Parts: sequence; C-alpha cells; structure tokens
Amino acid sequence: MLGKIYDGQFCSIARSLDIVGERWSLLIMREAAMSGITRYSDFQHNLGIATNVLKTRLDHFVDTGLMTRDERGDYVLTPKGRDLYPVLLAFVEWGDRWNAPDGPPGYFRHVGCGEAVHTAMRCEVHGDVDAAEITIERGPGAPDAWVESRRPARS
Amino acid sequence: MLGKIYDGQFCSIARSLDIVGERWSLLIMREAAMSGITRYSDFQHNLGIATNVLKTRLDHFVDTGLMTRDERGDYVLTPKGRDLYPVLLAFVEWGDRWNAPDGPPGYFRHVGCGEAVHTAMRCEVHGDVDAAEITIERGPGAPDAWVESRRPARS
Repeated sequence: MLGKIYDGQFCSIARSLDIVGERWSLLIMREAAMSGITRYSDFQHNLGIATNVLKTRLDHFVDTGLMTRDERGDYVLTPKGRDLYPVLLAFVEWGDRWNAPDGPPGYFRHVGCGEAVHTAMRCEVHGDVDAAEITIERGPGAPDAWVESRRPARS
Repeated sequence: MLGKIYDGQFCSIARSLDIVGERWSLLIMREAAMSGITRYSDFQHNLGIATNVLKTRLDHFVDTGLMTRDERGDYVLTPKGRDLYPVLLAFVEWGDRWNAPDGPPGYFRHVGCGEAVHTAMRCEVHGDVDAAEITIERGPGAPDAWVESRRPARS
C-alpha cells in the first residue's frame, strides 16, 4: 500500500502525494470536484494539458479509487475523490491570501444562504486553533524504526 | 506573478502549486511546519532526499517568501510558510481516512487540552458544510477571457 515515490515516509501526506502529487493532478481534481467536469474532452479543453498526460492521470485516478467511469465513459468522482475538496479549498485559500495580486479568482459560498465558506482547524472543545497550538501524538501507523530514526526539532 | 508551469490557469490552486507542487516540496514543508525542522542536514536526514533537490527546493522557498535564513543559515518559516499548515493538515486527514491501512501515523491534538484537532469547511452562519453545499462565485482575479473560454459542468 505504500507509494513508490516517497517510500519510507510513514506519513499520510506522502501517501496522498503518491496519488495526487504528480504535475496537473490537483488541477484535474479541481476541475472534477469544484467545477463538476466529467468528460475527457472538457478536462482537456479547460486545462490545455497534453492528452497523454491527462489520460495517464485519469487512469491513475480510476486505479486508485478517486474516480470511476460511467456508461458513457465519463470520469465520475467517488466518495474518496470528492473527499479531496477540503484539501483543494485549503490550497485555494492559501493562494488567495498570498498569491492573488488581482484578488481571489473565486469566492466560495454556502449554497442558499450565500455566506462565505472557509476552512478552519478546530479543537472539538475549544473551537478554532492556530498551527502553534497543535501537537502531534504518535499513532499506530508510525513504525518504531521510522520514529527512532527521525531527528527532532532543535530548540 | 503568474507561475510558469500552470500559466493560463487563473486559479489560486495553480498559483500555489507553482510554489509547492514540485516533488518533495510538501514533505519539506511538513518537516518545517509540523516537525519544526530548520537545519539543512536535518531535512536531508529525515527525508532521505537527494541534496541537489533539497537545496533547489529550499532556495525556491526562500525566493518565494515561505522561508528566510537566519544568522546560522537555518531555514525558518515565514508567516506565509507557516500558513500552509491547514493545507498540510487537510492532506494528512485525507490520507488518514483513505490511505492509512495501519491507522494514522500521528494524531493532531490541541496543546494543553489534548483534544483532537481537525480541519472543517464552515459557513460563517451555519457552521460545517459539505462540498455539495458549496458554490463558487466569480472573483476579481478571474479575467473575462478565461471565464468565457471555460466549459461548464454537464447535467
């Protein structure tokens, strides 16, 4: 189950990048998850991506369970694929804050009520938390050898 | 200001990927933001990454304002760099849900209280929302020609 590129990194980010870390992957997923694109020719049109690259990525998404193909051959997101939405939105917000000199290309709003939608990091008890207030506790997916080999932060 | 790789995509994800989309970039940022790594040799040790790749990525992070170098030559996150934490955490959570057969490698907890920290997408009025409840309204960073050239979702 471990990916090939970042093998040896016992980390859910590394495993995620083995699926969506290749060039264009997240923009293809943006088209699917945020713009509802399903047809091969529409992905190609909207991204201007080389067709061999697009085909390879879409096939990979089907192989890794992010998409299925329907009876028309369209690429339809699975629950696993749709669940990338918060990752994409977090990327959007970071880009909007730091890399959007002309302002955000889009605003994300709650259907119906029209209010802004944002991502947040939240403690179940205390609500919104900042990165500085988060600590990481070892979980079952981290092998001893890996944990012991890692160098810690220096004070 | 537009990136080179995904030029023509007026999208904050594309702009973000031009900064952190290269192979190893997000794992280097994980080491910095989540593990507090600052020293070149510690990044190298923890990731097992080729030194020329590591140097190129770190230089790029300095050039794009994600890191600065302190008096010891260590790589220290800027506010822009630290602000990637929610993106990293969203990636972690997706990987934990879908790509962690042995369980999560780590648990993210609120310092002090010890409760779990999670990312969420939230409407300012109605609280947590699902991807299906989000709509995108055009913003000032989306040029006419780009918007008009795009194909919409098919029903």
